[in-house]
Amino acid sequence: MHSGILGGIRVLDLSRVMSGPFCTSMLADLGAEIIKVELPESGDEARHFGPYLEGQSTYFMMLNRNKKSITIDMKSEEGRQLVRELVAKCDVLVENFRPGVMQRLGLDYDAIKAIKPDIIYASISGFGQDGPMKDWPAFDLVIQAMSGLMSLTGPKGGPATAVGESIADVSTGMFAAFGIVSALFHRERTGVGQQIDVAMLDSLFSMQLTGLSRQLYFDDTPKPVGNRHPVTYPVDSFPTRNGDVVMVCFSQSAFQSLCKLMGQPALAQDQKFASNDARNANEDELRLLIATWTKQHNQDELVETLIGARIPAAPVWTLGQLAKSDHVAHRKSVVDGKHETFGAVPLVTQPVRFSASAGQDNPVVPTLGQHSEQVLKTLVGKSAADIEMLRHKKII
Amino acid sequence: MHSGILGGIRVLDLSRVMSGPFCTSMLADLGAEIIKVELPESGDEARHFGPYLEGQSTYFMMLNRNKKSITIDMKSEEGRQLVRELVAKCDVLVENFRPGVMQRLGLDYDAIKAIKPDIIYASISGFGQDGPMKDWPAFDLVIQAMSGLMSLTGPKGGPATAVGESIADVSTGMFAAFGIVSALFHRERTGVGQQIDVAMLDSLFSMQLTGLSRQLYFDDTPKPVGNRHPVTYPVDSFPTRNGDVVMVCFSQSAFQSLCKLMGQPALAQDQKFASNDARNANEDELRLLIATWTKQHNQDELVETLIGARIPAAPVWTLGQLAKSDHVAHRKSVVDGKHETFGAVPLVTQPVRFSASAGQDNPVVPTLGQHSEQVLKTLVGKSAADIEMLRHKKII
Repeated sequence: MHSGILGGIRVLDLSRVMSGPFCTSMLADLGAEIIKVELPESGDEARHFGPYLEGQSTYFMMLNRNKKSITIDMKSEEGRQLVRELVAKCDVLVENFRPGVMQRLGLDYDAIKAIKPDIIYASISGFGQDGPMKDWPAFDLVIQAMSGLMSLTGPKGGPATAVGESIADVSTGMFAAFGIVSALFHRERTGVGQQIDVAMLDSLFSMQLTGLSRQLYFDDTPKPVGNRHPVTYPVDSFPTRNGDVVMVCFSQSAFQSLCKLMGQPALAQDQKFASNDARNANEDELRLLIATWTKQHNQDELVETLIGARIPAAPVWTLGQLAKSDHVAHRKSVVDGKHETFGAVPLVTQPVRFSASAGQDNPVVPTLGQHSEQVLKTLVGKSAADIEMLRHKKII
Repeated sequence: MHSGILGGIRVLDLSRVMSGPFCTSMLADLGAEIIKVELPESGDEARHFGPYLEGQSTYFMMLNRNKKSITIDMKSEEGRQLVRELVAKCDVLVENFRPGVMQRLGLDYDAIKAIKPDIIYASISGFGQDGPMKDWPAFDLVIQAMSGLMSLTGPKGGPATAVGESIADVSTGMFAAFGIVSALFHRERTGVGQQIDVAMLDSLFSMQLTGLSRQLYFDDTPKPVGNRHPVTYPVDSFPTRNGDVVMVCFSQSAFQSLCKLMGQPALAQDQKFASNDARNANEDELRLLIATWTKQHNQDELVETLIGARIPAAPVWTLGQLAKSDHVAHRKSVVDGKHETFGAVPLVTQPVRFSASAGQDNPVVPTLGQHSEQVLKTLVGKSAADIEMLRHKKII
């Protein structure tokens, strides 16, 4: 039997930088064989994004665990011919060029389908394969800006604030992985492949159902409200001596408990704060009262006190605090990967835990072209002399 | 043949509010039959989250397109017996109770597997089914706070800023859907079902590969930097007369073009701004110079000017601007759903476009218990008298 849920599935990965590589890394985590095609000499652009460990991009490493790297110059006809030979042996093709590029290369869906009729051909782009914006340049920040997500994130009154991680790229990669696995299921039942079109802007739009439940039904456009809940107060973040906490004071009884903890039980009866409507109306005053109290405490101590009083709460952790937490250790969320130069390197794989199918225990991060020879020999029968000639011509 | 990619797949959906319902709505969009189990009388808590259209939650509608709603009181043994009868006819079970609840109900994986050996049993939770934090209350804001994402989002210098949509719930639902479809593929090839454990905190952690490439390799903890790129300047947002724009001035030549557009071509040679390092060192001064220029323009006009000079740029749109855009119209991202009371209602489905398999064109939003009778009759053979008795005892 195959090892891993996607064992035996082979993916020709022409994608670069983030959305596509994030997608194929999720497939790799489940045991798919990813053949990553990179430009000869320079490779995936992400190899040139910092930070660098002895000249090698750790950003690239995180995104390209457990893939095989081969180099092909697709601008040459011989290179494109190699892609055609390879795709005949693959189940899935993933690309995230600008719409139209694959057509110009003669590698669009119809061309590939003629070679491999049941191919699953996934295209990832900023704005989709068709539509009025398909030719716009798509960067994560551009998509965040146009998605509305920026416009409703940030301090009360603005400015519109971008998420501090490439959320548009990552989310689109996640949807693409969902789409590809769904199409593999469909192919397993019917024998039929298909084309998949995933757009970054569509992806972020479809994720904002809370905002859209106001926008589409009431033409009520969400704006930034800081960290407070749009309806219920105090559900918000507050400062302590050594870091912020969030508290979810979602009910009347939780608010009464909070006032007791603050040593001001009468506040809960004060007409300015006695109901959620009143607390919303007097939010600034209440926030100040609570913050004055929270600032006298340490983060851990305050969280413990709140949880003890059945008020859901949590520390605002840095990424470092989470990475070093007992939680991450227990859940084994950081795994040891293998790198030709560095030996063991830390990697983070997709988060779903499956009971039946072990994933890859020690994912390998490929150096540029590390698997060119192996893949071209075993998959498409190139001889050592063929490969030497391809190298000489700088096709690979 | 089945209609839709997941046609013929039946999901018993015990989940509430957001992460689970977001997951099962993605499966519904692909043609799976979702049997949503709700509490008699009150239903899913999300039915009581605003905003309301004539007393009905539009938030609930967005999240529960194309599901069948049945009511069962799982606190009663007769109710639990109904769940057991139903699950025997299902392929997938999804739940997002706190860890331990399904065990106390006698409906944990081992119990369900005894009834339906190849079940795919998906549990969604804040911190996972095991681990030091499994009993903590999990709200979206709590997970955002602990994930590190808040700590690296926001204006330079802080405060830590939450994303203005329930990104932890939504992302976890997306990973769960990916996990379930992957497990369906595995079952299709092997006949074997399995248990799936998806945690909100693990999900957000695994999405931050840019931040983690600094954190895990260099112990360099990301902090909020506003909307600017962590390395390259000026990649940032700027104000105009009527809204912000983002620009991605990622290269020396793009910066030269920008200086020309600003009517200050000499800036590109000024030693304060002549290199990316210099621009980072003098960021505040450069930001002010650019903002002074951008404020003299309208948003649309400025974006056109920048794009014309090959500087990637975009308007910061509200959710309303995107919802009403030509893009969303062309991509048909808002579809007409059907609701018993309101007739046509606007809905947004999962964003992946599949060529081979039509999805549901007019997804139905269920009223509470709308399908109880139909499901109990056809699926587990209850008679009209049985159903009458179950209603009388308030089991359904």
